[in-house]
Formats: sequence, C-alpha cells, structure tokens
Amino acid sequence: MTEVDTSVYQRQKFGQKLGFGVSASLVVIDYTRGFADPAILGGGNIAAAIANTVTLLSAARHAGIPIAFTRHIYADDGSNFNLFNVKLPTNNLLTTSSDAAQIVPELTPTAGELVIDKQYPSAFIGTNLASWLTQRRVDTLIVTGCTTSGCVRASSVDAMCAGFRPMVVRDCVGDRAEGPHESNLFDLQQKYADVVSLTEVLTYLSR
Amino acid sequence: MTEVDTSVYQRQKFGQKLGFGVSASLVVIDYTRGFADPAILGGGNIAAAIANTVTLLSAARHAGIPIAFTRHIYADDGSNFNLFNVKLPTNNLLTTSSDAAQIVPELTPTAGELVIDKQYPSAFIGTNLASWLTQRRVDTLIVTGCTTSGCVRASSVDAMCAGFRPMVVRDCVGDRAEGPHESNLFDLQQKYADVVSLTEVLTYLSR
Amino acid sequence: MTEVDTSVYQRQKFGQKLGFGVSASLVVIDYTRGFADPAILGGGNIAAAIANTVTLLSAARHAGIPIAFTRHIYADDGSNFNLFNVKLPTNNLLTTSSDAAQIVPELTPTAGELVIDKQYPSAFIGTNLASWLTQRRVDTLIVTGCTTSGCVRASSVDAMCAGFRPMVVRDCVGDRAEGPHESNLFDLQQKYADVVSLTEVLTYLSR
Amino acid sequence: MTEVDTSVYQRQKFGQKLGFGVSASLVVIDYTRGFADPAILGGGNIAAAIANTVTLLSAARHAGIPIAFTRHIYADDGSNFNLFNVKLPTNNLLTTSSDAAQIVPELTPTAGELVIDKQYPSAFIGTNLASWLTQRRVDTLIVTGCTTSGCVRASSVDAMCAGFRPMVVRDCVGDRAEGPHESNLFDLQQKYADVVSLTEVLTYLSR
Repeated sequence: MTEVDTSVYQRQKFGQKLGFGVSASLVVIDYTRGFADPAILGGGNIAAAIANTVTLLSAARHAGIPIAFTRHIYADDGSNFNLFNVKLPTNNLLTTSSDAAQIVPELTPTAGELVIDKQYPSAFIGTNLASWLTQRRVDTLIVTGCTTSGCVRASSVDAMCAGFRPMVVRDCVGDRAEGPHESNLFDLQQKYADVVSLTEVLTYLSR
Repeated sequence: MTEVDTSVYQRQKFGQKLGFGVSASLVVIDYTRGFADPAILGGGNIAAAIANTVTLLSAARHAGIPIAFTRHIYADDGSNFNLFNVKLPTNNLLTTSSDAAQIVPELTPTAGELVIDKQYPSAFIGTNLASWLTQRRVDTLIVTGCTTSGCVRASSVDAMCAGFRPMVVRDCVGDRAEGPHESNLFDLQQKYADVVSLTEVLTYLSR
Repeated sequence: MTEVDTSVYQRQKFGQKLGFGVSASLVVIDYTRGFADPAILGGGNIAAAIANTVTLLSAARHAGIPIAFTRHIYADDGSNFNLFNVKLPTNNLLTTSSDAAQIVPELTPTAGELVIDKQYPSAFIGTNLASWLTQRRVDTLIVTGCTTSGCVRASSVDAMCAGFRPMVVRDCVGDRAEGPHESNLFDLQQKYADVVSLTEVLTYLSR
Repeated sequence: MTEVDTSVYQRQKFGQKLGFGVSASLVVIDYTRGFADPAILGGGNIAAAIANTVTLLSAARHAGIPIAFTRHIYADDGSNFNLFNVKLPTNNLLTTSSDAAQIVPELTPTAGELVIDKQYPSAFIGTNLASWLTQRRVDTLIVTGCTTSGCVRASSVDAMCAGFRPMVVRDCVGDRAEGPHESNLFDLQQKYADVVSLTEVLTYLSR
C-alpha cells in the first residue's frame, strides 16, 4: 500500500474500531490437511498460523465459549461441485472420503463443537452457522483459519453482515502467498473487521 | 504481487476460465453521487469507470438483457444502521433523502430496470437479486460499479455462490485507491470471477 | 382437526414449549391499508387483531424492546414483481406510491423503529431482519400481523430457522378466513413456535 | 374449508396458475426411514406417497432432469441441534449414524444426484440447493416428499422465493395426518405453488 492510499482511507473515515462485544465465539476455518499441505492448497504462513491457533483453541475451550470448525468439502461423486470448482479444480480433491478434507489432528474438534461442511468460500453460505451463533446470543466472532485472501475474508465479511463483530486474529490466519495475505488484512481492517493480535484475544478470553 | 506469489497460484491451478454463459444480466453497483464524489466516498479511477459504464449500459439496453442497479442506502432515522456503519461512519451520510445515495444522472435507470437498495457490501445480502436473476434464467452476471475492493468484490463472490458466472469488467469497476483495486482484481480473477475487458463484453453483447 | 390427528402429534412428541428467552423483539407484519381493507386483501378477524396489536405495541414501546414493522410492497414500475405476483396478482396493487402498501395509522412506526420492505411472504427473505435482531442479541421474536396462513406463518418458520424463538400472539394475528387461520396456528404450535395469548405477552413485557 | 373461505380467495384473486416452465428439476424431501415409520415420524398416507414417488423418480431419471434428495439429519453429538429440536425432540433421533435418517431403499440416489442434508424444515435453509438449481438454469421445481404440512410446505414456499415455480405433486407428498395434509395443499395452491397430479407431471416429463 502506498502512502496515498492510506490517506484516502483516513480522510474518508475508514477503519474505525468495532471492539469486542460481550459474548464471543471462535471459528476455525478450513484448517484441513489439504490446506496444511503446500503440495495441495497450502504454503506460506499457514503452518505457523495453525500452531498459533492451537494455543487459541485451548484458551477458547478453557473460557467455555462456543467453538465451530469448517471443512471445505464436496461429495465423492462430485454431485455438488459448483462454479468454484471450475475456477479452482483443485477443490475437486477435497471430497468426503479424502484425507485432504479432514481437519488437521492438532485441531481435532471435541464433542459438542460444531463442524460445518461448506462448498463456497464463506462459512456462512449454504450453512446454518449464523443461526447457530444467534441462538447462542453471540455478538463477536473470533476468526482464525485460511486462507486470509479467500475463506477468511469471505467469512469475515459475512459475519459482519450477519450481525457479528469479526475479530480477525492476525497470528492465526494464514495464506499461501504474502501479498494477498497483507492486502486482505488491510481491506478487512479498513472496512469489515478488527484485525487483532493473539495476545489481545487471549487477554479478552481470560477475563 | 511478487513473482513467487503468482507461481504458487499457477502450481495449485487457480485462475481457470469460467467463460460467458448463454444468458447474461448487467449489474451496476453503487454508482451513486456519494461514490462519484472524492469528498465523500469516491476518488481514484471511479469517474473513468463510470464513463465506461455509460457505454456498457447502452449496449446492454440495446441487447435487451436484464439490468439491475444497486444503491448503498440507509433509512433517514438511522434505524437500519449496522456494524458496517460503525466501521465506516461515512456510510451514515447515505440516507434515503440524501443526494449522496442517488444514482448518478448519466446512469439513471429506466422503467423496468431493477433498483436494489442494500445496507451491506454485497448486492446479494438482504436483497432479492439472486431470485430476480434466477427467475430470468440468467447464468452470467456482468459486474460493474464501485468499489472494486468493497462492494464489487463482495457482490462478485456472492454471485458465484448463487450460481452465476461473474464477469468483472476491468474498465467499468473503480476504486478510490489503486493498490486495493489491483489486489482485488487479482483475487477475483484467481478464485471467483473472470476479469474481462469492456471490449470483450461489448463483443459478447453484440452477438 | 380430528381427534386422530392430534393423537399422532402427541405420540410423536410434537408441540413442546420453547418458552420466552431473555431478550425479545416485536415484529408487526403487513398491517398495511391493503390488508386492513376487505375489498383488497383483508377481511376476517384482521381488524380485531390490529386493535389488539395497538395495545401490544404500546406495551412493547414502554418496555423499550426493539420493534420492527414490515410492508409488503413493490416498485411502481413493477420491476421487482415476481412469481408471487403471478400466483396472486392483487399483490400488484401494493406499490411504493399506493395507499394500500402503507402501514395503518394506528400502528405508525416512530423514529428508530425498523421498517422492512419485502416482496415475499417471509419478513426474513430478501431483508436484513435477521442480522438486525442478531446485532441486538435478541433471542425471542414476538410475532403479530397478517395473514396467519401467509406472511405470519412464513416469518415464524424463518424466525425459528434464524435462531429466534417465535412467540405468535393468537389475539394479534389475523386472517381473511377462519379455516386457514386455525389450521396454521395448529401447525405453528406443533412444530415451529409457541402460540401465546396477548395477556401472556403483556405479563412478560411488564417484568 | 367452508364455502365462505373459498369465496374470499376467489374474490381476491388467489390461486392463479404458475404453469410449468421450460427446465424442471425434481426434489424428493425427507423420504427417509424415520419418516416412513409410523413409530417414529411417519404415518398417514406417507407410504402410498413414497410408492408414487418411485414411479416419478424413474420418469425423472428417464427424462434426464436434475434430481435432488434431502435428509433431515443432525450430528451424532448433537452439536447442531437447534430450536426445532426443542419443539420436536423426536428430531434428535435423526443423527448421522442412525438408520432413521437414511433415505428409504426404494428411492436410493444414484451417482450424480444431489443429497442435501438439512437441519430445518425447508430444503433451502442452510443448504446450497438454490444455487445448485440456478447453476443448472432450472425454473421449475417438482416437489415430492414429506410432510406436506412441514418440510414440503416450507420448501415449496422457499422455492417460489428463490425464483423457481413449485409444482407440488399431490400423489407424491404425504403427511402423518389428513387434516394438515389437506389444509396445507390448500394454502400452497392458493398462494405459492401449483398442486398437480402425478399424471400431469409424467406427461410433462415425457414431452
């Protein structure tokens, strides 16, 4: 981002703070084997972001907040392949019976934690995540996962649209390439979400 | 984007072509006075993109395809302000009775063209745009408007998720700042949409 | 309903109580001039239900809970007419500039109360009602309006699906015909909502 | 329905015909073991309706139209139980590993046919059914399944709202009790769908 860019955003009053609300939930987006593997859909800082998310998940469990995971996953027979599969055919590897679509072992969900299967970038499209959060009177969604420029961004935008304050944890979101990672964190912070540090979230959860 | 970035995308098979379908619609996103005015929410290449969209709108009318416009607009009493207004309080200026929320004169809708009022970035959130297009058996959405990094991106992602091939017209989308304009066109082309030229679309419409 | 019918429902454990939650909102559905007028889309017990809703609205305002109204309304040029207009062409009279689409005077919204314009039966389809309620951490939706067999039912079902406990106020919902009124209250009570009395709601609001 | 009821509907012009469009899809709603079994959630005319649906499914496959099935199903650990489970706790039996949630053998989907898992009445809530149909340029949804007063009605209403003409096949929809079956077919025919016979649909499919 050039300096000119930033000055326009400041002048037009972008980037105000949403702040944490009173009732948070954690979502862990697409930390599955396929996105952890640079030979499939991973790379960049994703491995480091997963490691940080292990710490955050532990704190969220200790705090007792609702926890949800997503998997990007398609039917084995391809019956629900869609336009996203045309644009990115590597999606076709992420089928129900594949290893690539399974959540990485270090983030295995426990009983009672929600696992959302999705076929589009956003965790809110074609799923009941919004109503699951609403029923629990959540007002803040702590967002982790990958990729920053893909499913994290789409889910964060939709979280805002569904009435939840998205808190995107910089240390816990990852992308296969640094440019899109940074440019999307910029967009998110300016328009849709608060980009926060792991330390801030841990402090919030230990209240 | 560095060269390393691009190579990852190529290796993982991003950026395949969706191609035009057999039945297109044109959407013109948020070309209202407030986004045309650099003193409110405009700037950058938005004025040039509006001028190009005048050309495209004329061709679309000539071709007889369904045409929709969006306005980003809130109630005068602020009763439907939301989290997006917290993040970007300049949104609060875009009220029903304001000049800023009205479509620019050179793109004035004519009778029978759809005008969608929205309160979130995507033209599909809290609106009936998807069903309006579905009822008309549209399979391709020609996307123009502003900003590339905001409502154009959100609407294009949601178009794909709703089953429409998004064709983002590079010459007809604008942004207040060049960095986000380019980085979002990159993301759109790699993952969700075809980024096409005005010339390509005019050729398609003149079939 | 025959006695046999009811016994099946009991045996299969339908009709359990949802109960009021801790944070309610009131929605007033389609109490517009067209639905108050038996010559347009009204009739039956709608007038009586409107009178009861005046009492409830007053209590809701006194209690300070979020209040929303809906209007069933279309663009003057018919650009957003849809399949519902094909099935029921009387819908075409309910246009922006018509008297028929305006809320009845005795239920006029005040500043800060939400007015939702909709083109389909449910107050949640093509609107931001769910996110408006979610952002306010509402968990209970007190449902009034008309018709019981149409927009009240559709909105109540969708309220449940969005994570809100629908409390359908028997005295404050109306229909043009008694048969559908009663059969839909039965379905709602068995499957989706609690059908409650005005007295119960007034007691709840005066806590 | 009394004669008075019907006259109001006629006078107000309800019940116009939608008619079949040019591109249909078949949906088979919740014909799973639990809804086929009167000891769980079945009864009434559901068995007969399933038998008729076997005929229709065969014709739809012969015609080569897109075919979708739904299952009403929850996670084994109850993590996605919702308000519908509170209202109807028998829902809790319909878990991923249960027999009750599996499609009846005579309607087993074949490769390429869509199987939608849902947690709310409508086949469109929390699913990608609408975009799956839109991507295939479907304009007409042939609706079969159970129960007429529950998931069939909710799905038919939402089909109309999503831009698809719902054709509810009287012989192929079933309910545990006759009263709600008939009253909901009345509501559907008057407001949201065409209620058609199996013969009409077979004729349409054999064009």
